[in-house]
Amino acid sequence: MLGLTYFLVTISLVYGQIRHFNWAEPDGATYDVVDTTRNTIGNSLERLTSMRQVLADYKVDAYIVPTSDAHDSQYLSPADARREWLSGLSGSSGTLVVTANEALLWTDARYFTQFEMQVDTSLWTLMRQGTDPSIQNWLTSNMALDSVVAVDPTTYTRNAWIPLETALKASNVTLEAISENLVDIARTNIGDPPPPRPNNDLIALTVDFTGRRSSDKIAELLSQIRSAGASALVLTALDDIAYTLNLRGSDIPYNPVFFSYLIIKDNVSSPENVILFWGNGVLHSNISDHLQSEGLQIQTRDYSDIFNYLSQYSNSLPIDSTIWLTNDASHAIFLAAESGNVNIRSTLSPVALIKCVKNDVELQGFRNAHIKDGVALVRGLRWVEEQVAAGANITEIDVSDKLEEFRRMEVDSHGPSFATIAGAGKNGAVIHYKPPLEGSRVIGRNDMLLVDSGGQYKDGTTDITRTRHMSASPTDAQRMTFTRVMKGQISLATVVFPRGTVGHTLESFARRSLWEVGLNYGHGTGHGLGHFLNVHEGPSWILSGPSSTDPGIVEKMIFSNEPGYYEVEEYGIRHEDVVEVIAVTKDADHIHAESIVGDFGGAGALGFHTISLVPHQTACLDVKLLDDLEIKYLNDYHARVLATIGPILKERNLTEDFEWLERECAPISRDAAILVKTSPLLMVVSVATLWLRT
Amino acid sequence: MLGLTYFLVTISLVYGQIRHFNWAEPDGATYDVVDTTRNTIGNSLERLTSMRQVLADYKVDAYIVPTSDAHDSQYLSPADARREWLSGLSGSSGTLVVTANEALLWTDARYFTQFEMQVDTSLWTLMRQGTDPSIQNWLTSNMALDSVVAVDPTTYTRNAWIPLETALKASNVTLEAISENLVDIARTNIGDPPPPRPNNDLIALTVDFTGRRSSDKIAELLSQIRSAGASALVLTALDDIAYTLNLRGSDIPYNPVFFSYLIIKDNVSSPENVILFWGNGVLHSNISDHLQSEGLQIQTRDYSDIFNYLSQYSNSLPIDSTIWLTNDASHAIFLAAESGNVNIRSTLSPVALIKCVKNDVELQGFRNAHIKDGVALVRGLRWVEEQVAAGANITEIDVSDKLEEFRRMEVDSHGPSFATIAGAGKNGAVIHYKPPLEGSRVIGRNDMLLVDSGGQYKDGTTDITRTRHMSASPTDAQRMTFTRVMKGQISLATVVFPRGTVGHTLESFARRSLWEVGLNYGHGTGHGLGHFLNVHEGPSWILSGPSSTDPGIVEKMIFSNEPGYYEVEEYGIRHEDVVEVIAVTKDADHIHAESIVGDFGGAGALGFHTISLVPHQTACLDVKLLDDLEIKYLNDYHARVLATIGPILKERNLTEDFEWLERECAPISRDAAILVKTSPLLMVVSVATLWLRT
Repeated sequence: MLGLTYFLVTISLVYGQIRHFNWAEPDGATYDVVDTTRNTIGNSLERLTSMRQVLADYKVDAYIVPTSDAHDSQYLSPADARREWLSGLSGSSGTLVVTANEALLWTDARYFTQFEMQVDTSLWTLMRQGTDPSIQNWLTSNMALDSVVAVDPTTYTRNAWIPLETALKASNVTLEAISENLVDIARTNIGDPPPPRPNNDLIALTVDFTGRRSSDKIAELLSQIRSAGASALVLTALDDIAYTLNLRGSDIPYNPVFFSYLIIKDNVSSPENVILFWGNGVLHSNISDHLQSEGLQIQTRDYSDIFNYLSQYSNSLPIDSTIWLTNDASHAIFLAAESGNVNIRSTLSPVALIKCVKNDVELQGFRNAHIKDGVALVRGLRWVEEQVAAGANITEIDVSDKLEEFRRMEVDSHGPSFATIAGAGKNGAVIHYKPPLEGSRVIGRNDMLLVDSGGQYKDGTTDITRTRHMSASPTDAQRMTFTRVMKGQISLATVVFPRGTVGHTLESFARRSLWEVGLNYGHGTGHGLGHFLNVHEGPSWILSGPSSTDPGIVEKMIFSNEPGYYEVEEYGIRHEDVVEVIAVTKDADHIHAESIVGDFGGAGALGFHTISLVPHQTACLDVKLLDDLEIKYLNDYHARVLATIGPILKERNLTEDFEWLERECAPISRDAAILVKTSPLLMVVSVATLWLRT
Repeated sequence: MLGLTYFLVTISLVYGQIRHFNWAEPDGATYDVVDTTRNTIGNSLERLTSMRQVLADYKVDAYIVPTSDAHDSQYLSPADARREWLSGLSGSSGTLVVTANEALLWTDARYFTQFEMQVDTSLWTLMRQGTDPSIQNWLTSNMALDSVVAVDPTTYTRNAWIPLETALKASNVTLEAISENLVDIARTNIGDPPPPRPNNDLIALTVDFTGRRSSDKIAELLSQIRSAGASALVLTALDDIAYTLNLRGSDIPYNPVFFSYLIIKDNVSSPENVILFWGNGVLHSNISDHLQSEGLQIQTRDYSDIFNYLSQYSNSLPIDSTIWLTNDASHAIFLAAESGNVNIRSTLSPVALIKCVKNDVELQGFRNAHIKDGVALVRGLRWVEEQVAAGANITEIDVSDKLEEFRRMEVDSHGPSFATIAGAGKNGAVIHYKPPLEGSRVIGRNDMLLVDSGGQYKDGTTDITRTRHMSASPTDAQRMTFTRVMKGQISLATVVFPRGTVGHTLESFARRSLWEVGLNYGHGTGHGLGHFLNVHEGPSWILSGPSSTDPGIVEKMIFSNEPGYYEVEEYGIRHEDVVEVIAVTKDADHIHAESIVGDFGGAGALGFHTISLVPHQTACLDVKLLDDLEIKYLNDYHARVLATIGPILKERNLTEDFEWLERECAPISRDAAILVKTSPLLMVVSVATLWLRT
């Protein structure tokens, strides 16, 4: 699943860690959870006026409202949807700056049209990222000497804070951290307070799902904390905490995480060395029992205690002690940790580096989840085609709903892993498209339908895109691009590479076939997936630009493989599978296994194994454009899909689904006429055959 | 031509500009110009003792001797071969640190064995780069408080100076810039002064070679200087200066450059605005006439005046003026420029960005040079095979000499562009191999021979590698790797990509086929070439890691395309061509031209066109491993080689050469037996044919 413009990939990747900039959710991921009905242009003035009153109260000359929560999450809870409330703009990207006289909204090209539709343009000025001055430049040019720009320091990472503070200081402007969120105050002041922060029940994940007890994970982190000479490690990313504790939640849409902080201290003898900041600090007995059964003793505290606690802890440490923070931590966390006379060690999260390499139980769970997901998707795709063929007026939202319905029938389903992108016809070309709840497009017989969807299961997270022409009669251009996107996906799926290669080094393989005709796509090609966690998980990516924190690819990582092509106003094509990283040796299940003669001088040869199990619409392929290896790959793949999904459908007496699957998995081949074209010699042979036969 | 270990590529590329770290010359590039006969182990002690006396005289506790000149040149003049004189180690890489009690030599794995052979190990300690502590770490750990480490600031770039100075300061150690070179003093003190700095006659290059008058180049730079708000631009890279002035020299082996500095000031009305620091400041009349004919008035000064002049100039400028330096300038240049109350603007050289994009005259010259070079190489390669077949005892050095002889017969030849790498048998596996002048290997009938050589011509610079088995009977492993390296070269040669793509993004294409069997090669794949200038020219490269200063590929750049494979102690394979960057449109001379449908949304589609014109030894190919496009590419290429080089050989009555060329350019094809393997259907057809025929 994807959604990012090329632009963002290009500008953000060179500079440090990537968490959520490069794989944006579909437009309006928060749309269906934030009540937008009240947020009409009509009350924009009231909101902005209230905001300005708060600025005056706090003696602030400008206030910055980013799209962010205190955990640098990709998806936001409604409680953190402040930019949307104040400006009216929904979607995944945008930053506001409000002064007494100005109200500015910075966003990228995906949202320029949406801005005109959703935002009161008599009040708000659109600042186009990439062409208009940056926020920093605007502030340094427009703020008076000695003025104060304020930000809620929980909504800004330290990495973002420092350059802005430095630039403003050079212009004699102060960047001030105000711990109260001024938007929340503005809301409350006009009787529209922010919704309460979710604090839903936790889910315990047993070792038969996680493969590793939380106490073992903590022990590994403690050993790293000691090697680093640190007194404590502070975890702030919600998926890091969920992974470490083998717990899940539902505080954020699609991501089974819970609002929390976790501190791990280097005093293992004490049961006080692991402190979870969650809810009111009282765990349900099933959760504390679970943790105890995993050999873990933890202290729990109120979620909001973190800043006071961390500050006091910092002050309690001997001089020159070290607190280890992750470099996606907020400026507020840094301020609290720095309050004593201590050193701060800031790195990519050690949990991020551990959890991106799946253990054997997680891997088996991923494979299993993809079998279940394959069953659901085969049923869903067949249903769509049957409906469209029968002339039923089904819409994109119907597709989304039906897929969710089928997924929820599977064991351990926990709903979708992101908002389904079902784009028919020209909607398929909108990379971040999400069908609107009302009035989505009726799917026609001549539509290409792009369906990008995924499920959360207790044993794994899925993410798959299939593109199908509703009557298997694509135009020549559609057939050509459909085939070239497929060639790109196969090229990446079959590559062998040295252990430790970064994804960026492999990414061009997915583009080459499109490049050969002068076409391209404007998003990345592969993201990691969490295990029953966030569908986009770093720190390893397969992108068109380098990332300084990419640790390189090793065995047992999980990636998406999702090249695409988008003909604006006409159609979109994307083929997305999830793959696991495997060692490629002579006996590996890999198309190049037999020819392997080396292992890169001991480094190890790696490749991908596709675990998504849903047929591609081979009827849309131009087989002439495929080489022998590509045909073999597709036929091997479809044989495996049929052998895996087929028996399950049969067992459930889903006969029509089975028959559809069998048809869709039929092997493809080039016919003699095509072969003749490839070789003059063969032509002679063939002509001779024909002549001799007559 | 190449020579760098993977290691160096990996560690150096991420950090800023690349000039000479990534494409090292062959081992011992200075070997044949530095008189090494005196430099036996026997007098190492005398040299080191003299050095230590100078350290004592100057009150210096440690002195650093890098492999470098004042212009950050890749190849050194004997006058700058200080590391070699003091330690005895020849070759391209190494840094010395001398204290009263220690003499340490840092170098990379290529030189570990050579160290044992050339260096007095009773005096010198080898410090292995990558495993032993770095120079910085060694100094901070071993130097006493308040001690002084000194360096000749002309031999250190500012980029290298700052981090070292910062680290030493943190340990209370001072890094001191001493403008006299202490090695030169040590040499003089024992009656072995450094050879005089070359100051050979300049060569004027007219506009029919350069395509652009020097005054036009200066005008473009002046316009950039003004846009940047700078008072002056200081050029220090010798190829930048030669390019700007349309002059060449011969002060450095293989690189037609001359020791000089150039300052361009923003006061165009004065004839004093361009100041060349060269020799004693007196130009020969043919050179001043040439400059005048190009509309350029310049002031000339003594080469050694630069530092005083720049310092005085800096002090003469109004406060807050800006001097523009390139970021490969030495610390000494920075010190001089900073001596007034001015700002320093430091960027990648604007000349580097201009000269990497060739103009039409330069491009035509490149093509022409490659025709001449093709003639010479065809003659040389045929001569070698004839000699070996006849049982003559010819050596690697004979190959090198013969190629030079044939190249010098061509119009406007100016000798080799680097020391020929002619590696027979296991020597071919030594990536930086250069045959020794005495006792090089006799080439046997069962040898693979790797020949990497190039020529300087007034109209262009060439660089080509061909690998040939002397009796066209390679082993299976040689045939397989020979073919896979070829597939890599063809893959890069045929790729289409969006304008502005960086070379790194394309590099994996050259490796993929080897990767598929678990093999790889330890060097980069493509470097730019200067126009009758340095054979390795930045700032655009095709490498396995990113470079922060790579401007991206545009039309009219020139690159090498040189994947390889090296089986240590057995054989080496490299296929190297020079390519120019072309726009790929419907009517381009490109294998994918016909299928082009887009231009990347207006960005433009680019590809490569190979301008080297020498046949590959197709007898060493495993044609079964080639696909149709690869076979077509090779046949098209060989047809072009024959059509271009053939008539010249005929015209010169070089009949045997022509016949050899004709044989070597014969088209290849898969036979029916192979085709049968690819398709069961075809097998039926073929069997039917055979049956019907009998």
